[in-house]
Amino acid sequence: MFVHTVFFWLNHPESQDDRNALGAGLETLKAITDISAAYVGKPAETRRPVIDHTYDFSLTLVFSNKAAHDLYQAHQVHLAFVDKCAHLWERVKIYDAVS
Amino acid sequence: MFVHTVFFWLNHPESQDDRNALGAGLETLKAITDISAAYVGKPAETRRPVIDHTYDFSLTLVFSNKAAHDLYQAHQVHLAFVDKCAHLWERVKIYDAVS
Repeated sequence: MFVHTVFFWLNHPESQDDRNALGAGLETLKAITDISAAYVGKPAETRRPVIDHTYDFSLTLVFSNKAAHDLYQAHQVHLAFVDKCAHLWERVKIYDAVS
Repeated sequence: MFVHTVFFWLNHPESQDDRNALGAGLETLKAITDISAAYVGKPAETRRPVIDHTYDFSLTLVFSNKAAHDLYQAHQVHLAFVDKCAHLWERVKIYDAVS
């Protein structure tokens, strides 16, 4: 399996419009059939020193293998999401894991 | 859904014994039935400035809700894992996300 995890920090976290736009953009990614499982999330209420809850949105995508992940990266729906939404985030942090 | 993602940095990443021990410990967690889906991973070969590939192991656990996550946290198999393996890691970083 290949797990692609992305955390997004908004440029304007105080903007509900931006929040809605990024949330809606992330939801469009679920249409990409190369993805085995997709989870769009926001920080939970858990608080411990080892927990980073500073991000605004998370995206966890599970693929059967790296080839499926690579198809996702090049998929037009993903590219359209980046094109439409990249201005909304200040930064992203990505973790890719294989098993 | 509740996605609990943990990244582990080993105290002694050069030790294959430590690596095997943590990997085996993480695998024991999959027996906890409160978990809906579990993925134990290592850094993929992907390399971009926004990708953090410095960790040694990742754990992605999907739960149906926070209550299931809370049961996992208190589960004896999880507590036994922490008790047996905590000395192996230098640090962990956790992201909890709800959707």
